Amino acid sequence: MAGSTMGTIFRITTWGETHGKGVGVVVDGCPAGLALCEEDIQKYLNRRKPGQSKFTTKRNEGDEVEILSGVFEGKTTGTPISMVVFNKDQKSRDYSAIKDIYRPGHADFTFDSKYGFRDYRGGGRSSGRETIARVAAGAIAAKILEEMGISVYAYAKSIGPVSVAEERFSKEERDNNKLYMPDVVAAKEAERFLEECMEKQDSAGGVVECVISGMPAGIGEPVFDKLSALLGQGILSIGAVKGFEIGDGFGVANSLGSSNNDAFCNKDGKTAKKTNHSGGILGGMSDGSDIVFRAAFKPTPSIASPQNTVDRDGNETEIAIHGRHDPIIVPRAVVVVETMASCILLDRLLVNMTSRLDRIKEFYKEK
Amino acid sequence: MAGSTMGTIFRITTWGETHGKGVGVVVDGCPAGLALCEEDIQKYLNRRKPGQSKFTTKRNEGDEVEILSGVFEGKTTGTPISMVVFNKDQKSRDYSAIKDIYRPGHADFTFDSKYGFRDYRGGGRSSGRETIARVAAGAIAAKILEEMGISVYAYAKSIGPVSVAEERFSKEERDNNKLYMPDVVAAKEAERFLEECMEKQDSAGGVVECVISGMPAGIGEPVFDKLSALLGQGILSIGAVKGFEIGDGFGVANSLGSSNNDAFCNKDGKTAKKTNHSGGILGGMSDGSDIVFRAAFKPTPSIASPQNTVDRDGNETEIAIHGRHDPIIVPRAVVVVETMASCILLDRLLVNMTSRLDRIKEFYKEK
Amino acid sequence: MAGSTMGTIFRITTWGETHGKGVGVVVDGCPAGLALCEEDIQKYLNRRKPGQSKFTTKRNEGDEVEILSGVFEGKTTGTPISMVVFNKDQKSRDYSAIKDIYRPGHADFTFDSKYGFRDYRGGGRSSGRETIARVAAGAIAAKILEEMGISVYAYAKSIGPVSVAEERFSKEERDNNKLYMPDVVAAKEAERFLEECMEKQDSAGGVVECVISGMPAGIGEPVFDKLSALLGQGILSIGAVKGFEIGDGFGVANSLGSSNNDAFCNKDGKTAKKTNHSGGILGGMSDGSDIVFRAAFKPTPSIASPQNTVDRDGNETEIAIHGRHDPIIVPRAVVVVETMASCILLDRLLVNMTSRLDRIKEFYKEK
Amino acid sequence: MAGSTMGTIFRITTWGETHGKGVGVVVDGCPAGLALCEEDIQKYLNRRKPGQSKFTTKRNEGDEVEILSGVFEGKTTGTPISMVVFNKDQKSRDYSAIKDIYRPGHADFTFDSKYGFRDYRGGGRSSGRETIARVAAGAIAAKILEEMGISVYAYAKSIGPVSVAEERFSKEERDNNKLYMPDVVAAKEAERFLEECMEKQDSAGGVVECVISGMPAGIGEPVFDKLSALLGQGILSIGAVKGFEIGDGFGVANSLGSSNNDAFCNKDGKTAKKTNHSGGILGGMSDGSDIVFRAAFKPTPSIASPQNTVDRDGNETEIAIHGRHDPIIVPRAVVVVETMASCILLDRLLVNMTSRLDRIKEFYKEK
Repeated sequence: MAGSTMGTIFRITTWGETHGKGVGVVVDGCPAGLALCEEDIQKYLNRRKPGQSKFTTKRNEGDEVEILSGVFEGKTTGTPISMVVFNKDQKSRDYSAIKDIYRPGHADFTFDSKYGFRDYRGGGRSSGRETIARVAAGAIAAKILEEMGISVYAYAKSIGPVSVAEERFSKEERDNNKLYMPDVVAAKEAERFLEECMEKQDSAGGVVECVISGMPAGIGEPVFDKLSALLGQGILSIGAVKGFEIGDGFGVANSLGSSNNDAFCNKDGKTAKKTNHSGGILGGMSDGSDIVFRAAFKPTPSIASPQNTVDRDGNETEIAIHGRHDPIIVPRAVVVVETMASCILLDRLLVNMTSRLDRIKEFYKEK
Repeated sequence: MAGSTMGTIFRITTWGETHGKGVGVVVDGCPAGLALCEEDIQKYLNRRKPGQSKFTTKRNEGDEVEILSGVFEGKTTGTPISMVVFNKDQKSRDYSAIKDIYRPGHADFTFDSKYGFRDYRGGGRSSGRETIARVAAGAIAAKILEEMGISVYAYAKSIGPVSVAEERFSKEERDNNKLYMPDVVAAKEAERFLEECMEKQDSAGGVVECVISGMPAGIGEPVFDKLSALLGQGILSIGAVKGFEIGDGFGVANSLGSSNNDAFCNKDGKTAKKTNHSGGILGGMSDGSDIVFRAAFKPTPSIASPQNTVDRDGNETEIAIHGRHDPIIVPRAVVVVETMASCILLDRLLVNMTSRLDRIKEFYKEK
Repeated sequence: MAGSTMGTIFRITTWGETHGKGVGVVVDGCPAGLALCEEDIQKYLNRRKPGQSKFTTKRNEGDEVEILSGVFEGKTTGTPISMVVFNKDQKSRDYSAIKDIYRPGHADFTFDSKYGFRDYRGGGRSSGRETIARVAAGAIAAKILEEMGISVYAYAKSIGPVSVAEERFSKEERDNNKLYMPDVVAAKEAERFLEECMEKQDSAGGVVECVISGMPAGIGEPVFDKLSALLGQGILSIGAVKGFEIGDGFGVANSLGSSNNDAFCNKDGKTAKKTNHSGGILGGMSDGSDIVFRAAFKPTPSIASPQNTVDRDGNETEIAIHGRHDPIIVPRAVVVVETMASCILLDRLLVNMTSRLDRIKEFYKEK
Repeated sequence: MAGSTMGTIFRITTWGETHGKGVGVVVDGCPAGLALCEEDIQKYLNRRKPGQSKFTTKRNEGDEVEILSGVFEGKTTGTPISMVVFNKDQKSRDYSAIKDIYRPGHADFTFDSKYGFRDYRGGGRSSGRETIARVAAGAIAAKILEEMGISVYAYAKSIGPVSVAEERFSKEERDNNKLYMPDVVAAKEAERFLEECMEKQDSAGGVVECVISGMPAGIGEPVFDKLSALLGQGILSIGAVKGFEIGDGFGVANSLGSSNNDAFCNKDGKTAKKTNHSGGILGGMSDGSDIVFRAAFKPTPSIASPQNTVDRDGNETEIAIHGRHDPIIVPRAVVVVETMASCILLDRLLVNMTSRLDRIKEFYKEK
């Protein structure tokens, strides 16, 4: 399989399984000269690590990242940055319950179909732990974006039937509750809803929204590598995401041109838009306004109530998945969305430097 | 800009602008030995060409495709297939109305931001005519899929507020009406709705759904190149698409694990699923059931009613876009969705041949 | 086959066969704002076109290039530039002599092995005419390099046993003789040698050298994408090239560290080298001195004297290849080497813009 | 920098510096089902590790590889294989002698030019230790090739002025002497030559030849991804390689078509060649005979005799490089050449599976 690498200039390659020795990533193409240490990465990883609340697995993992290359005297050198999080919680467990049985909603059957067999200890490569590598890489991209004045902010927009109310939205509140909802009332309500889910041995889905501010206009390419298309690929490649929309998203299907078009205006001497139905992207390129997108996450497929399924030999049977499983994926996915988006945005900012001959000449004249 | 090429093995590279000499595509990596002639391509192009009904531009284009390379004695040779559709309707027009003014909802402003200037004759590279190249390439992929027993079927699921009713769905009906809706009643209703739109000098959006049957299980890769992610990129890269969802899509956000998981069963000796909330993809790989996805298209941004905007110099002004413009993008986009999906599916089927060592050895033993 | 595309940012995709409708290329990622017209391309194509002298095929081809996209009002727009040279000399000929027989030194047998059959009219995709597409694309790259103060100069260094003498080397002389040898005496001698070859129905090989001046230091990447490695791939991908060397090349194998190392010195306030055994590349990156490389071309495989071979069915037989064939590939390959190198150098200059964070920030601060 | 990844399907991504924490590689796209353990890798690494003889650095490194992912119950799973060799010999040393001074023949100056600064502890990323990652990845490719009946055999063909004599060539002898020369007499002579070099505080170059047997015909692509071109890139990307040639290589420049063409014949019912001037590749694709190529390695640039150079500020100065340095690169490079070639050959074998429609259909019919 090719398919563990993403990006054109800022390229990330991930590896690792949930119950193997660890999970890691190689970042190739990170510009030289960025001040970087493990703490820069760790603070992002801490937002997705298990054990943060009663809604996350109690798996005992510190998820401590180690930088193995590409940083010298506190700065990136331009060479590949290899990072690893060693799995601590590797203790031998009894996998006989899932070894030969296909868990509904999981990739067990499709893995077997593709490769002939699979690492049956947990989800193997398809586990949520795979996203550790994405977050570690994206933390670097996010740091660069921040230094360039670009902010990337994701949050839990809805959890099951509970949504953030626009009038109560508070950016800071997001980090005050373990559901990463920027609305203190909704967060409480969502907690109650999740407690019910857990009692019923069930799980819930939700929506993550991401807002990017400060992007210059013209980033992204007009055809296959539209910024919206690349963000779509990146976000849809996160396990459990079943939908992606930008700006008004599926809402555009029932709107009219007269209301969906964003009128241009002159704001402080610059071209701006009066509204932002486009979600910050026109013709695949950033238009200078906030980029806004959403992703729909399905409920955690691991549930304790019994489900019908088959084993490898095709015999019909039942399975009930016990053990530690988050009743919802969304809260810990917030930082995954944020960092994946950061990787893609940075990559496109780098590619975009080559789009105009006058700027290329100017760049090399000074060197 | 890199970004006019898509695919790993079956790679397509497109070129061309709406008012330039033509639009074309180079297909590299098409397997040798496929019977192919221009008619195979033309029948797909005819489904997107203008002038099919009162709801499509009257632009006088036959959109006749010419194959320039890669086919010999009626069969593909394995070398690049170059195809071109020359623009007939290139007559010099007066572009002064749009030359220096940014049309809302279009890529005029973002193109200028990225490249410093733009081909202002129509949308240039961001015109809907760009999709001709995608359809031509995808027609080849679709032909191969068909020979492998895989069917790809897209249709207009909704137009404005009018949706296809499940109980009236008729696969064949799709090609009987020019809106490509497989529901004769909904099609009529949608026609009326569009007539109203046109009277009001407005435009409408809609949803295209695509169903793929016959895919073997295990196609797609587990991480960044999930089949869902690549389909997402491909479909979101079609101009005007603002949302993409697979299976239950955004519906999963408010469902429960117990109802969203698809139970496995044994059907005629093979592993199958009792339901298909997953939309045929688990963990990024096809699960053997129908692949089902949807794309949301925004209303045509070109509308005749006046809109606020600015010119290149930042002066606020108004624009009313006259001329021939479809009041809706969806009907002609149906075949674009179908062919884009075909390219991606074929590419992943080819890549998948390399996933298991026993099959590789067997492949070469016989040669 | 993937494999008709080259480059990361400045990407070229070629297509076409010698006796098909034409040969062409799509250049994706050319920066916007370059003044470009067909004459810019044509002057390079004229250096490789047939019929220039008695040593080149009399095939009646003007090789006139047409630009189909990506240029508007005389400037590149940043979108793909599609170029085509239509084949004029397509007249139906009798191919029965080569249809089922494998010509020694040609790709007939390997094409059949790979694809199951082949376009047997001439070399098909493996014809020298394939290089038209490379030259057309490279002419654009060369123009940009020239505007940046970088010169790329290739020439015939040796033809059979006749080599350019250093003391007689004259840059301008190259274009005064049809062998593209920058040494008037050697050129005459080589002419006599080739006339003998032709009388004997034989063909000859030779060496092309290329010198690049004005490259800034630091271009190329330290590992797989070393500038020397990418130049190597590009040049070795030209049909008939069997060897590639940079700087002292194979001579280094029998030199000593003390003489092969180039001492650094300070020249006009800048770091320079006293000698150039490295050929302008150290550790895969340009070192600021002239980049010098050489390519060895095999003799034209098409010769009129009879050769032993087999047919498709494995029957042993003889073949004598009549018709118009250059007795040497080198002279017309000079411009191919020059333009291929230009594509690679430009691509790496573009990629290199993203290597340092301070420069990236500075780039975007001003925009 | 993009540029630490190589391959289309079998993709390797390397990382690490000589005095950092370690050196490693991620292999993505390795087929599932290969029996693999650390010993399979270690035996290749042992052929390049230091301390094997008086001609290699005494650096105290076991170079023990650890597999971190992608292998389960002794077999590859199809997911990325991450491997690491931790550096043991990382002790803090005094680098003041080289910190600000550019060593001739090294990448110090070019690294500074590109990235603004560098990891000055040894060669950093440009050290020979970087090849550990290549060997580890290539060991996997080599194991697969071996199971497919393809052998890849490289050896020291010449060391300084001493060459292997064809009449004394003995395949097995290669592993009996630490210079990896398959000629016991030449090996002795080369030893004496190297001892002299060391006495004079100098270093020597040489040539590695590689012979691949058992490749099916038709592997490689006809244009940019010619097998010869990709081998060229891979081999020229090994530090210190300044030349690459295939078959008769630079010898073709002074040969004639009549003698350089290889006549085809029928051998045991199969198409074969009477000679092998082509080096096993015609038109960029394997022709079924042995693939033969050579690489020229420059003398080790680190020598103890004093050399003229400059420091970072442009001041002219002298440098004498003390410490442990091999007087020749060739012997330890033999296995690097072998494994790099293996990666490329396997990658192309995988890509080639997709070249013919009939074979694709047959492949999927059975699944």
